[in-house]
Amino acid sequence: LKSVFSTRTGKIGIVQRSREELKAIRETNPGLKPTLAIIQAGEDDSLLEVNKKMAGKIGLNVMQICLPHQCREEEVIEEILRLNEDSRVHGIFLHLPQSFLSKSVRNAIKPQKDVDGVSDLNVGRVVLGDQRHGFASPVAGAVLEMLARHDAPLVGKMAVLLGLEGPLKVTLQFLLQNNGMMVQTRQWSSKHLQKQILDSDVVVFLETGHKGLPPTWLRPGVAVINLSSALMEGKSHFEVFTKMFVAAVVICQHVVRSSRRWIQEQQYQPWRLRPLKLQPLSPVPSDIEISRAQTPKPISQLAQEIGLLPEELEAYGNTKAKVHLSLLNRLQHQPNGKYVLVAGITPTPLGEGKSTVTIGLVQALSAHLKLNSFACLRQPSQGPTFGVKGGAAGGGYAQVIPMEEFNLHLTGDIHAITAANNLVAAAIDARILHEATQSDRALYSRLVPSVNGVRCFSPIQMARLQRLGINKSDPSDLTPEEIRAFVRLDLDPEKVTWQRVVDTNDRFLRKITVGQANTEKGHARQTQFDIAVASEIMAILALTDGLGDMRARLGRMVVGSSRNGQPITADDLGVTGALAVLMKDAIKPTLMQTLEGTPVFVHAGPFANIAHGNSSVLADKLALKLVGEEGYVVTEAGFGADIGMEKFFNIKCRTSGLTPDVVVLVATVRALKMHGGGPNVTAGVPLPKEYINENLQLVADGCSNLKKQIQITHLFGVPVIVALNVFKTDTQAEIDMVCRIAEASGASAAVQCHHWSRGGRGSVELAHAVKKVASQKNHFQFLYNLQDSIVEKIRTIAQKVYGADDIELSPEAQAKIDYYNQQGFSALPICMAKTHLSLSHMPEKKGVPTGFILPIRDIRASIGAGFIYPLVGTMSTMPGLPTRPCFYDIDLDPVTEEIKGLF
Amino acid sequence: LKSVFSTRTGKIGIVQRSREELKAIRETNPGLKPTLAIIQAGEDDSLLEVNKKMAGKIGLNVMQICLPHQCREEEVIEEILRLNEDSRVHGIFLHLPQSFLSKSVRNAIKPQKDVDGVSDLNVGRVVLGDQRHGFASPVAGAVLEMLARHDAPLVGKMAVLLGLEGPLKVTLQFLLQNNGMMVQTRQWSSKHLQKQILDSDVVVFLETGHKGLPPTWLRPGVAVINLSSALMEGKSHFEVFTKMFVAAVVICQHVVRSSRRWIQEQQYQPWRLRPLKLQPLSPVPSDIEISRAQTPKPISQLAQEIGLLPEELEAYGNTKAKVHLSLLNRLQHQPNGKYVLVAGITPTPLGEGKSTVTIGLVQALSAHLKLNSFACLRQPSQGPTFGVKGGAAGGGYAQVIPMEEFNLHLTGDIHAITAANNLVAAAIDARILHEATQSDRALYSRLVPSVNGVRCFSPIQMARLQRLGINKSDPSDLTPEEIRAFVRLDLDPEKVTWQRVVDTNDRFLRKITVGQANTEKGHARQTQFDIAVASEIMAILALTDGLGDMRARLGRMVVGSSRNGQPITADDLGVTGALAVLMKDAIKPTLMQTLEGTPVFVHAGPFANIAHGNSSVLADKLALKLVGEEGYVVTEAGFGADIGMEKFFNIKCRTSGLTPDVVVLVATVRALKMHGGGPNVTAGVPLPKEYINENLQLVADGCSNLKKQIQITHLFGVPVIVALNVFKTDTQAEIDMVCRIAEASGASAAVQCHHWSRGGRGSVELAHAVKKVASQKNHFQFLYNLQDSIVEKIRTIAQKVYGADDIELSPEAQAKIDYYNQQGFSALPICMAKTHLSLSHMPEKKGVPTGFILPIRDIRASIGAGFIYPLVGTMSTMPGLPTRPCFYDIDLDPVTEEIKGLF
Repeated sequence: LKSVFSTRTGKIGIVQRSREELKAIRETNPGLKPTLAIIQAGEDDSLLEVNKKMAGKIGLNVMQICLPHQCREEEVIEEILRLNEDSRVHGIFLHLPQSFLSKSVRNAIKPQKDVDGVSDLNVGRVVLGDQRHGFASPVAGAVLEMLARHDAPLVGKMAVLLGLEGPLKVTLQFLLQNNGMMVQTRQWSSKHLQKQILDSDVVVFLETGHKGLPPTWLRPGVAVINLSSALMEGKSHFEVFTKMFVAAVVICQHVVRSSRRWIQEQQYQPWRLRPLKLQPLSPVPSDIEISRAQTPKPISQLAQEIGLLPEELEAYGNTKAKVHLSLLNRLQHQPNGKYVLVAGITPTPLGEGKSTVTIGLVQALSAHLKLNSFACLRQPSQGPTFGVKGGAAGGGYAQVIPMEEFNLHLTGDIHAITAANNLVAAAIDARILHEATQSDRALYSRLVPSVNGVRCFSPIQMARLQRLGINKSDPSDLTPEEIRAFVRLDLDPEKVTWQRVVDTNDRFLRKITVGQANTEKGHARQTQFDIAVASEIMAILALTDGLGDMRARLGRMVVGSSRNGQPITADDLGVTGALAVLMKDAIKPTLMQTLEGTPVFVHAGPFANIAHGNSSVLADKLALKLVGEEGYVVTEAGFGADIGMEKFFNIKCRTSGLTPDVVVLVATVRALKMHGGGPNVTAGVPLPKEYINENLQLVADGCSNLKKQIQITHLFGVPVIVALNVFKTDTQAEIDMVCRIAEASGASAAVQCHHWSRGGRGSVELAHAVKKVASQKNHFQFLYNLQDSIVEKIRTIAQKVYGADDIELSPEAQAKIDYYNQQGFSALPICMAKTHLSLSHMPEKKGVPTGFILPIRDIRASIGAGFIYPLVGTMSTMPGLPTRPCFYDIDLDPVTEEIKGLF
Repeated sequence: LKSVFSTRTGKIGIVQRSREELKAIRETNPGLKPTLAIIQAGEDDSLLEVNKKMAGKIGLNVMQICLPHQCREEEVIEEILRLNEDSRVHGIFLHLPQSFLSKSVRNAIKPQKDVDGVSDLNVGRVVLGDQRHGFASPVAGAVLEMLARHDAPLVGKMAVLLGLEGPLKVTLQFLLQNNGMMVQTRQWSSKHLQKQILDSDVVVFLETGHKGLPPTWLRPGVAVINLSSALMEGKSHFEVFTKMFVAAVVICQHVVRSSRRWIQEQQYQPWRLRPLKLQPLSPVPSDIEISRAQTPKPISQLAQEIGLLPEELEAYGNTKAKVHLSLLNRLQHQPNGKYVLVAGITPTPLGEGKSTVTIGLVQALSAHLKLNSFACLRQPSQGPTFGVKGGAAGGGYAQVIPMEEFNLHLTGDIHAITAANNLVAAAIDARILHEATQSDRALYSRLVPSVNGVRCFSPIQMARLQRLGINKSDPSDLTPEEIRAFVRLDLDPEKVTWQRVVDTNDRFLRKITVGQANTEKGHARQTQFDIAVASEIMAILALTDGLGDMRARLGRMVVGSSRNGQPITADDLGVTGALAVLMKDAIKPTLMQTLEGTPVFVHAGPFANIAHGNSSVLADKLALKLVGEEGYVVTEAGFGADIGMEKFFNIKCRTSGLTPDVVVLVATVRALKMHGGGPNVTAGVPLPKEYINENLQLVADGCSNLKKQIQITHLFGVPVIVALNVFKTDTQAEIDMVCRIAEASGASAAVQCHHWSRGGRGSVELAHAVKKVASQKNHFQFLYNLQDSIVEKIRTIAQKVYGADDIELSPEAQAKIDYYNQQGFSALPICMAKTHLSLSHMPEKKGVPTGFILPIRDIRASIGAGFIYPLVGTMSTMPGLPTRPCFYDIDLDPVTEEIKGLF
């Protein structure tokens, strides 16, 4: 009877290696504490001690879950499921009697945390030879190691495994066979057991409660390994201890490996994106038909392909998901990808297809050039969806799918904005009424009530006291004057600037009188509703970089001024926290996909005149981390480059700190002909023949606008690529002319795009140009300094960008500037509210107007969003419905649930 | 050299059995076509033919996916992923060269469709002896079968497996070993190969391209089985064919098994619910603290526990999910569970805790009595969340979690209602304006425009023509009179009954004037906003039974009347389809969970006065199927039983066709004391001492109200259990008295409940009572017939339920009745809009008022929802904000994202 003794060298080697590896992991990931969770039932025992001791030696944390000795299977499973989801735990070890290790219990453990190798999947991997993904039973490994040390060579030797079936037995059998041994597995009740044992070189006892074999059954020199838990449970025995010690080392090694895998998962890896196949039809079907014909990937699959962790995703159905901002923290050390802005020349009223270019470009980059790339789009208002035809999800074979989800509720962000915006409005009017009908004392006792005999200020009330310069915290200490200052916002009903919003095209709400019921006691006043996306809260959503910042901006929003001219904020109304709560989900960008299965963020959609018209900073930041250094984020600016791009640079980039690598400037032959002197282009009216037939002169003349927009881009030091969005009526000569003039005007490249009819394949040339130009260094700069005066900043934009001779301020505008200067708001960037149909303020002036003075009618401020917006002309903030709104064609098939008639 | 020949009997047996089983499956599931999908690369071959032929013999469908011979791994995986998600496919077989069967390819197959047993998980299951869940390689099974037939006994015999590693080799090795053989696996290159083969009784060749062994290596009598694909590929050979034939039979058998499993999954099974542990603290913390202290189960896990299929769930984040209505179809043959209504006595203005009783009861039923049970709750308006404290998710240890999700946006249903409601409103005013400013011809040419030279009516316009009695379909055929009738709804601005809504407490919108901007050309009119849940669309959502029905109801909604008195509907506005599209997700109930991890549906929340105040018919129907015959669905009616329960029976049950099994009538000592003559109870004011100290006289006197509400329940033939919701100030004598009087008044049982402080454990007694009483047969009946006249129906309710002597109609009410009779709306049920604070119309009359005449001030109709609502007194449909709204305390921690101060 040969005993198996271990020399310590081998194990010490593994211990040493594991410890060093763990040390290295901890150095590069200081927040990480690799942890082994042990679930035990009943008292501690010596085996448990071995595992804990070894974990300590290596430097692992141990989390010990003690269940009662008589616990039920479900309780064990419940603990396992909890540990599965606990991201602090990297390995789970069940220190439980055999009878507990049922199939359900074993397979409850997530395979990647199953460091003891007991799940069906891990056993399958091990027997199929996959050492990289699976964990093999450490005890089986320990047995093999001992045999290899003491009984080599193993090839051709005969082993008998005796006892309970299970992962250990199966794994051991395979390990021994893979080392050339002949293995038989037997039960204690097997026939001919004595003969088989007599024939064996190695006997392994796996079973509990074994009493030993008659010595006569063992031939001299046979190796006997006894794993029966009778011995493990307390009866200290050097031999067993040694084996368990080895197993414990391996378990710990597995936890280290699991931690390393976890870190790898957390880190950026190149995408393994599976594009969706596209087979474009000709003629191109309607947008909704194209969208419906493609089956989107499950959004969780797309998320996995682009390296999102399951806990970073909040699915909203199967095709949309919100992404957690914690991603920014996880990938903080990951370099950003290239940042590509899609802007346009001055458009016709029909739009020139910036969104389709954006989507076509990412389809080409991702699905055809196999480069990581992300499109970041604005969420459209739902109102126009039911008014005049035209979606915002792209079009043709360059679309976000499912387009009806994109164009309708999406994940409810605009609804959240509506709720938050209107809560502020309700709070304003209710406060005016309450102040008007109550004494200071009554207001004070209601605003700071005694609750169970205690009166105290809420934190938001303390903040107001501080702004008022009252440094007191006990409500009973305030003087009558201080109480008056505190309880009376004294809002001037004539100077309330905050408006209610709805996400419906409801023209009858453009000017209304509220408060006409008897209950409002005559406090009626005139006001208006805007479309929801015109809310300042939308602009804040687009510019914020996190929850804390958003909360602060919401609090700073100025809703009007007091009778003595002080600005009154959301904070003064006490509503900031509630707004943040309403917006807590809206702050997370929504992930969707293009027709070719490439990722898209949809997030925020502020107006492009009274706000800055760009999608969110957060979506861009998340996307830049996700695509990684070699990847591309393509984002879009509203309107023409003179407005959308200027604001993108001077407002959005200034706020975010991100710098763009290249601008894609979208042009169409149609718009160029208009600038060259072609007849008016009007929505709903057939195009004049100049736009259908070749007309090189109009194109050549109209390129003045293109040239000017290229020059504007160069003001910011960013290279520009002209993307000619080709329509089927464009002739080759026209196309060639545009590209030639564009390059002669300083564009780094000028290419034609056919994404609308061909998908990403139609924009491959553009993708190559973007790749090339984006890799060149540029010299990005802002157009003005924030410290310039408000007038100087406006003049700079008017002269350098629009080509105006000068600006002219109305008396109202001048008064506002004085007021903002006095309130300390002068260092904000400028957000011009100008028509997008001309470089000037006159929509009918096409091409490159000159010799004009830009009139500034009025100036307003979005203090929370953080910009001042001069009004050049009147801006409608509430669209209407036409005589025949497109809802006449929209319907839902109640059986198939398919939507009809949506674009 | 012994050849292996197959007698056909065995296989025929399996074929026969499989065919019969398949036939049985098809008979019970006529829609199901069990299908084997075969992915092949390149041309067909004889092996493929064998598989197809066998499938045909058994009656399986075959779906053949042909990839090019040179396809890439990703293409194979893409096809597999598609087949995984295709519910028509029950088995996937890869007929591909060995080199294609990479780890990634093998493991791409969903284990439950891996009928060839090639995935790691299936191999793991097989080697661990799990035959029930795994599929073992059919070829390995075929080899074993042949050996068992020709070489028995196998015990002790030696086999050598030669060739490529992989699932087949591993599986075969295990099958042979489990049958007592000694198995060695070898490569062609192994040393001592000749000796090992010479020692063997069985040699199996697994590898491609093998050229055969020298005959001298094989000892006489050895069984040689050749699976090398060289032979399979075309060189017809009886022996190989035989083996492949057996394998094909087994594959088909696996597909049948997979189909059977699929059917089992689709069918109802008893739940294996894992309740969440609850350890109530004393004193009971705030609602939000309790909610936050409990970690909810992932909603997908809860869904799985209650038998929902993954494709029936649309997660909205990790704690909410919408459930598809297709479930109703899948479980149509499943008997319904018991249907329990929670109603209440006439409450104090503070409410008596019906929602907490509802939740406490299901916590007790599910987590403690281990009976399947579901709570169906109303979704609360978000408005009051920011007004006066008090959530609707239950309270204390009987709550829905996370309560902030419940009380805020939830899954956007109310936002969808707001959008749909306001689209109708915008369409009304825009239409009035367009009709007022355009000629018939202009309107007609805009409403029926020429598109590419073609003019046609849209389907919804055709429907309007038919209602007008114009049976023409060509727009050019209409006479000027017909055109005029078609284009002019001629809505009387004074008779528009449709109001706009917001989900905000905005009192200044109670009476407003709209249309005051110049663009509306003087068409201003007075109107109002209601809170969103007062919209008729909410009432429709609560009463509909599916998409088709919802669409029809939306179209029938009457929005006002024309100048000549005709009702104008949403259909006339052409907006029905768009409304259905906006509501397509809202129609799916939202799944959440209680504090103890039991399921809850949250769906719809119509007003309890101007509407019927009950959660949705669809949620109840889905829940009744999910709990199954032995389960319980607990749903709640708004207000006291005289209103909420009466409407539940006469409106909701009449619409749904469901019949209730038992009513739980909630009472509190507080409310009973009020009815007994106690002082006024007012929100925000400390309770008078009568409510804090024992006062048996008040309790005894107040039980008159309890007795009356019991009698009302009995009018409907349904048994009633009184649930006394115990507060900590209640004394034992008071509690005993209530229970005694309740039972003496005809309650089937009367029990005290402590769920608020103890969770489900505190309502176990109630759960037992419900179980007992619900199992008794009852004699449910409606209170009136729909064919009764409107006046008779109102009188019946007033006299039998409220105890009025008679009713008195105002002239307006009488005129409306005449109008509804004339329009054919008289057969609708009645939805009384009466105060809930008294059985009478006088809120101050407590107990059981008698000797009063119920005045009917006016009568209105929700034709889409399907009821007529008489107004008894004035109903506020827009709450306001108090001086200190509770938003002062609400905040969001930007780091932890935790919400503070919400209830």
